[in-house]
Amino acid sequence: MSKAVRIIGIDPGLRKTGWGIVEYDGVKLSFVQSGTVKSDASLDLAQRLNQIYDGLRGVIDHHNPEEAAVEQTFVNKDARATLKLGQARGIALVVPAIAGISVFEYAPNQVKKTVIGVGHGDKNQIKSMLKFLLPLARYDSDDAADALAIAICHAHHRKIDKIVSLSEEQLQKPGSKALA
Amino acid sequence: MSKAVRIIGIDPGLRKTGWGIVEYDGVKLSFVQSGTVKSDASLDLAQRLNQIYDGLRGVIDHHNPEEAAVEQTFVNKDARATLKLGQARGIALVVPAIAGISVFEYAPNQVKKTVIGVGHGDKNQIKSMLKFLLPLARYDSDDAADALAIAICHAHHRKIDKIVSLSEEQLQKPGSKALA
Repeated sequence: MSKAVRIIGIDPGLRKTGWGIVEYDGVKLSFVQSGTVKSDASLDLAQRLNQIYDGLRGVIDHHNPEEAAVEQTFVNKDARATLKLGQARGIALVVPAIAGISVFEYAPNQVKKTVIGVGHGDKNQIKSMLKFLLPLARYDSDDAADALAIAICHAHHRKIDKIVSLSEEQLQKPGSKALA
Repeated sequence: MSKAVRIIGIDPGLRKTGWGIVEYDGVKLSFVQSGTVKSDASLDLAQRLNQIYDGLRGVIDHHNPEEAAVEQTFVNKDARATLKLGQARGIALVVPAIAGISVFEYAPNQVKKTVIGVGHGDKNQIKSMLKFLLPLARYDSDDAADALAIAICHAHHRKIDKIVSLSEEQLQKPGSKALA
């Protein structure tokens, strides 16, 4: 069996950024840790973004994930809210990149489709699927639960992508060995 | 005369982020340096944000500005463009904050009003006022010129704020000494 990969999922937000770390060995998913980075609304924007930066940096330094998955922002009609979320999302994307970790992005409906089987569904459905897929998972906020769902979504797509890229490889070079 | 303060102005953008550094001693403005941090559009978003992070971090490490001014993003109807800009803007705000520098934000019309006297005006008007206010200024892009205008805007408001806060101080504590 191949070595397990450690994945961090991040659900970015200016007030609360959830994170969740899982390990996946190609067969089994295991829970590592999760949490929520909060920013202090009484501070100015640059300082709040710095709190998110510091919090995520600390998590990555401590847990050493090898791949990161970040939820794609839902672009809505409220441009001001979109901008706020965009700024927090910039931090969520750059912190793993600074640490040299590959960052993957998934749309919210992709995450839901992977975890609960359909592209829509509420937070409670995500939580009950988490109980099933990661029985030992603990989380301190909805954002941390979402972050775990994002990490699971990446583990799942990672597996599919690997299979697809291997078949393509074998298709293109019929005599070559599989990489895994 | 008080010691000059070194100010970095930043005009954030995903493709090109302009920066411009000036010094201001309360009377005289001087040009220090300006430039443009570009991101490679063929890379993924997290890597592009990392290029902006690296570029701005290098500029701040090299030039040691003491205060930063960042243009407020114009929130428009194109939510996708707003999100893109928001992500780059998150980086422009967090890099000086990480370096322990206070970050100030100015709306585009505030910058124009300070530099060209009215709240609207095109890039050429900004450039001719730059020639007047900072005769030695050099810049390699419109974004770098805008960044210099943002730095000048902050120098100007800084002066006014200082005067206002000193008068308030003297008003509240009639016997106290001025801080400057």
